[in-house]
Amino acid sequence: MPVTEPTSRFLRACFRLPTDATPVWFMRQAGRYMPEYQAIRRQHKSILEMIIRPDIAAEITLQPVDVLGVDAAILFADILLPLPPMGLQLEFIAGRGPVIHNPVRTQEDLAHLGQVDVQADLGHVFEAIRLVRAELQGRDIPLIGFAGAPFTLASYMIEGGPSRNFVETKKLMYGQPETWHALMQRLTPILIDYLLAQVDAGAQAIQLFDSWVGILHPVDYRRFVQPYSQSILRSLMSQTDVPVIHFGVGATTLLPDMKAAGGHVIGLDWRVPLDQGWAMLGDDVAVQGNLDPTALFAPRSELTRQVEDVLTRAGGRPGHIFNLGHGILQHTPVENVRAVVDMVHEWTTS
Amino acid sequence: MPVTEPTSRFLRACFRLPTDATPVWFMRQAGRYMPEYQAIRRQHKSILEMIIRPDIAAEITLQPVDVLGVDAAILFADILLPLPPMGLQLEFIAGRGPVIHNPVRTQEDLAHLGQVDVQADLGHVFEAIRLVRAELQGRDIPLIGFAGAPFTLASYMIEGGPSRNFVETKKLMYGQPETWHALMQRLTPILIDYLLAQVDAGAQAIQLFDSWVGILHPVDYRRFVQPYSQSILRSLMSQTDVPVIHFGVGATTLLPDMKAAGGHVIGLDWRVPLDQGWAMLGDDVAVQGNLDPTALFAPRSELTRQVEDVLTRAGGRPGHIFNLGHGILQHTPVENVRAVVDMVHEWTTS
Repeated sequence: MPVTEPTSRFLRACFRLPTDATPVWFMRQAGRYMPEYQAIRRQHKSILEMIIRPDIAAEITLQPVDVLGVDAAILFADILLPLPPMGLQLEFIAGRGPVIHNPVRTQEDLAHLGQVDVQADLGHVFEAIRLVRAELQGRDIPLIGFAGAPFTLASYMIEGGPSRNFVETKKLMYGQPETWHALMQRLTPILIDYLLAQVDAGAQAIQLFDSWVGILHPVDYRRFVQPYSQSILRSLMSQTDVPVIHFGVGATTLLPDMKAAGGHVIGLDWRVPLDQGWAMLGDDVAVQGNLDPTALFAPRSELTRQVEDVLTRAGGRPGHIFNLGHGILQHTPVENVRAVVDMVHEWTTS
Repeated sequence: MPVTEPTSRFLRACFRLPTDATPVWFMRQAGRYMPEYQAIRRQHKSILEMIIRPDIAAEITLQPVDVLGVDAAILFADILLPLPPMGLQLEFIAGRGPVIHNPVRTQEDLAHLGQVDVQADLGHVFEAIRLVRAELQGRDIPLIGFAGAPFTLASYMIEGGPSRNFVETKKLMYGQPETWHALMQRLTPILIDYLLAQVDAGAQAIQLFDSWVGILHPVDYRRFVQPYSQSILRSLMSQTDVPVIHFGVGATTLLPDMKAAGGHVIGLDWRVPLDQGWAMLGDDVAVQGNLDPTALFAPRSELTRQVEDVLTRAGGRPGHIFNLGHGILQHTPVENVRAVVDMVHEWTTS
């Protein structure tokens, strides 16, 4: 925690300090479900083209702050940004998601990966952070930076895109453990540099997205993943005073090990009732979550029921940040997202 | 349990009776990873064409019994078979999986569904069961029948195929709950008839596959799914003396509710260590699982380590059926599958 207690709802909740209302933001709150985003999207050929333009990235980052009234902004970027500087040919293909045309599956592939100089290669991210911070000056809305965790990044690098069963990832993990560990050792310092530079540029909190880690058995998590995530989380927690959020999807059985790896806040997906998840983690950590993203498609009465269920399970205890259990889905009605912000604030205002 | 104690390892373990060795079978053990299957597949235009031929289905069912030395056979069929008789246009498209060309998303769609007479419409399944039982005469290898659970079938009917986020399913569930419940009420008696007829034809155990139920919050499981699964499981358990296995993927947080719905055996996926999963369920139920299917691609030493981990966690307690945490994946090396059968038998032989 910083020397002076933070004033914003979001940062206070990260440190389990009392707040006037429960803070709320949404994973992927800046994105294609918003008409304001679509208007910018139509003017650009690709998503990457928008991300690397600091002015555009900053503008998109700020859209949900104004439209939704959320308590934090999260930088418009992508977890795969550190991959192209390593020599990976990344393309976002409509309807298919990210594709990496030269996946990494051998020691030789690994040897060919390029060095990353985060300032030279990812300077646009830091510039976007500076622009957002300047725009938010005078408002108590913190900006969240983020990166993909090494397991999730490695899985994209190995599979060459999204995967259902992660067979190639596990084949490499089980069959070439030295290559796996070398890849994780390669990614870890890059991610530390990248995240520390985001904080230097002005990010006031960091989320480490280990989106696909829930595909692992806990023993495999501890053998193949935890040391590297821990190294990143501990570096951030010892070298900065910003709070760190650690998140995975479908990772209920990994929660105690993810907490041990680090983070002031553990993100919960919607599969675990918030009170059960928090009980598994213990009361020395904050939690973020965990409305089912599909609830945002439900009629208002059902949506209200589900929001209130999450809040009831949180029980008004300091240290709850309201969010979804995963990112906002395409076609989500914006008015429902805005309604959730209001519900959370009204329901929890003391 | 039947009046006379069963003699086979598999059936004894289902009823938590001591066995001479831990029984082992594999979900999707009859299928495309086997050269013997591929040889038959090449002679037919589609998978459905093979399934509806009782002689072919029986032959494929028996292949892994001889090749692998497993302790049970499972009928070569598909959970979606009850859908075409209801008027759904089902097609298996290579590389994409099952597609339903006329998904069910409204009360009107539901009203147009046809009546199912399981004997008339699915007689080939019962004939295949009779053929397999005749072939297995004199061998103590039980035959497992199965069906998809109503949630998983409904999700295919609504989405029109496999899904990542199950948005349409949940939109219907949350937005048209009366249509959802009507659909579940429609499916439940069909599945009861279908499974009872499989037992009548000679199936000696039943597995209810609720493959995709792990996408649900436990509260939604209890509201929208549990009563229907329970009705099916209870009908089987009261009207037959065969053991019933109840299985879902990624369903750790649902385990107590799935157990409450019914089943002599609860199937565990690999995300939950077997001892933890069994502890969540209590000791009045058997468990099946739970090797990670990708472990079958690992070098022998790693595969052995993972098999022994599962067996160690089972602790030699009666009531463990060794299986994977999900179905065998395409391209799985057959020699590794066979090696697991031997490992399990040798490791657990007293």
